Amino acid sequence: MLTRFLPRETNFYDLFDKQVGYVVDAARFLKEMASKETFDETYLKKMKDIEHQADEAAYEIINYLNKTFITPFDREDIHSLAKELDDIVDMVHTIVNRVRVYKLSGNNTQLIEFASVIEQSVDLLTQAIKGLRSMKNAKTIMAACQEVNRLENVGDSMRDAALANLFDNAKDPVLLIKWKEIYEDAETVLDICEDVAHVVESIVVKQA
Amino acid sequence: MLTRFLPRETNFYDLFDKQVGYVVDAARFLKEMASKETFDETYLKKMKDIEHQADEAAYEIINYLNKTFITPFDREDIHSLAKELDDIVDMVHTIVNRVRVYKLSGNNTQLIEFASVIEQSVDLLTQAIKGLRSMKNAKTIMAACQEVNRLENVGDSMRDAALANLFDNAKDPVLLIKWKEIYEDAETVLDICEDVAHVVESIVVKQA
Amino acid sequence: MLTRFLPRETNFYDLFDKQVGYVVDAARFLKEMASKETFDETYLKKMKDIEHQADEAAYEIINYLNKTFITPFDREDIHSLAKELDDIVDMVHTIVNRVRVYKLSGNNTQLIEFASVIEQSVDLLTQAIKGLRSMKNAKTIMAACQEVNRLENVGDSMRDAALANLFDNAKDPVLLIKWKEIYEDAETVLDICEDVAHVVESIVVKQA
Repeated sequence: MLTRFLPRETNFYDLFDKQVGYVVDAARFLKEMASKETFDETYLKKMKDIEHQADEAAYEIINYLNKTFITPFDREDIHSLAKELDDIVDMVHTIVNRVRVYKLSGNNTQLIEFASVIEQSVDLLTQAIKGLRSMKNAKTIMAACQEVNRLENVGDSMRDAALANLFDNAKDPVLLIKWKEIYEDAETVLDICEDVAHVVESIVVKQA
Repeated sequence: MLTRFLPRETNFYDLFDKQVGYVVDAARFLKEMASKETFDETYLKKMKDIEHQADEAAYEIINYLNKTFITPFDREDIHSLAKELDDIVDMVHTIVNRVRVYKLSGNNTQLIEFASVIEQSVDLLTQAIKGLRSMKNAKTIMAACQEVNRLENVGDSMRDAALANLFDNAKDPVLLIKWKEIYEDAETVLDICEDVAHVVESIVVKQA
Repeated sequence: MLTRFLPRETNFYDLFDKQVGYVVDAARFLKEMASKETFDETYLKKMKDIEHQADEAAYEIINYLNKTFITPFDREDIHSLAKELDDIVDMVHTIVNRVRVYKLSGNNTQLIEFASVIEQSVDLLTQAIKGLRSMKNAKTIMAACQEVNRLENVGDSMRDAALANLFDNAKDPVLLIKWKEIYEDAETVLDICEDVAHVVESIVVKQA
C-alpha cells in the first residue's frame, strides 16, 4: 500500500535494470558454457540460480504493477517487457538444460557463434531499457532496437546454415535431433530479443 | 442483451465452474487412458467430446465478457483465465491424439506419473477458481496456486528424467521421436496450469 | 501527427486490405511451390520478399494505432488482427524456408492439399476483413469465419493422416523429421487462420 506514495517512475526503471541484469547473466553464462570443453552438474546448476533470480525480478515488477495506479508508460507495455525479458532467460535455461539432459559436451562452434550474437543482442537491450528514463535518449534507443532486429536476421541465417550442415552430415539421427533443437532454441532467444525491442520501440513511439 | 441485467458476478463464477469441470474431465481421461493396456478409436474419441465441450464453455465466457460492462475482476484476467483453461484441455487432447496417430499402446510408466501430477494440479486449480467467489478464501487460494507452481517444477524434473532415459536407451529413433513429444507435451500441460495459477494469483493480489 | 486529423476508420480498413493482400500472396506462393517439381534459391527468395512486405504492412498498422486516439474497433482487436495476420505469413515463410534448408523437392501430395485448404481459408479471411467496413455484412462475415473454423478441423484430420502415413512408411528417420515438421507447420497456418477468424468474430459481436 505504502508503495503507492513512493516515486513510482524511478522504481519501475530500477526494477527493470535489475531484471535485465539477470538477462545479461544468462547470456554470459551461455557464452561461457558453449566455449568450455566439459562441465558437470554443479556448473550447470548456476544457470538454474540465474533463472530463479530472474523469475523473482519479473514477479516483483508484475506485483508492483498490480499495486500501482500511475505508471511511467502503458501498463500493458510494462507487463510485456517484464514477460518477454523473462522469456529470454527461460529459453537460455532451456538450452543449458538440454545440454545437460542430452549429455552433450561443449565447444560446439555453432553454439559459440549463437551465444556471441545473443550476448550482443542482450547488451543492446540493456542499453535501450536503461535509456527509457529520458526521451532525450529516443534516438539511441531506437538505434539499439534496430540493431537487435538486424541480429535476429543474422540468427535466422545462422540457424539455417547450422541445420543444413546438420542434415547434410549427421549420420546419427538421435544426435541430429539433439543439436537441431538447440540451434532452434538459440535462434528463438534472438526472436524474443526482437520482441523486447519491439515493445521498447512502441514505448518510445507513444511518448514521442 | 438481457444478460446485462442479470446478477453478473455469480454468472462468471458459474461459467468458470463449468469450464474447469471439463478441464478435470480431460485430466481424469488422460490418467485413465495412460493406465489402460489397450484402447481403440471409439475410446479415444471421448477425449474429442470433452475438448469440444470445453471449447464451448470457453466461447461462452468470452462471448459473455464481450457483452458485459461490469465484471467481478479485470476483463483481461477473465479473458486469460478462460483461454489458459482451454489451453490445458487442448494440450491434453494433443497428447491423446498423438497416442492415437502414433499407434502407441498404453501403460507407459512415465505417462502415468505425468497424468497423476496433472490431475493433482487441475484439482488445485478447481479449488482456487471456486474460491474466487470470496476474498475470505484468499489464503487458501494462494496456497493452492503455490502448490501448482511446485508441481510444475516436479514436472520439469519428470520430463528431464524421462528424456534422459529415452535418449540413453532408445534404439529406435522413430519411437524416440514419438515418446519425446508426448513427455514434452505432458510437461507443457503443467506449464499451462502454472500460467492459470499466475492469473488467479494476480486476481487475488488486485483485490487485496 | 497529421494523421490524427485524417478520416481514421477508412485508413485502418485500407491498411488491413493491404496487409491481407500479402497474406493471400503468401498462400498463393505456397500452393504454386508445392505443385512444382523443382525450384531454385531465386524462386524461394520471392517468399522472403512477400514476408518482408507483410512485415512492413503490420508495422504500419501498429505504428498508426499507437498514434491514433479514436479507432473503428477495440485497440486490442486491431493489434491482435495485425499480429495474427503477420503470423500467417511468417508460418508460410517457415514452411518455404524448411523446404529450402532441408533440400526437399516439391510435388508432395500432402503439402499440395494443405496449400489448397490454406488458400481457401485465407480467401475467406480476406472477405471477412473487407466486410468489417459495414455491420450490414455481419451475417456474411460470421459465415466466412465459421467456414475458416471448419477448415481448421479439416486441417487437423489432414495432419493426422499425413503423420500416420509418414510413421507407417518412413524408413528414413531423417526424412520423417523433415516432413513431419512441414505437415505440422501447415496445420499451424490453419490454426492461426482460425485465431484471425476469432478476432473478427469478436469485433462483430462487440458492434452488434
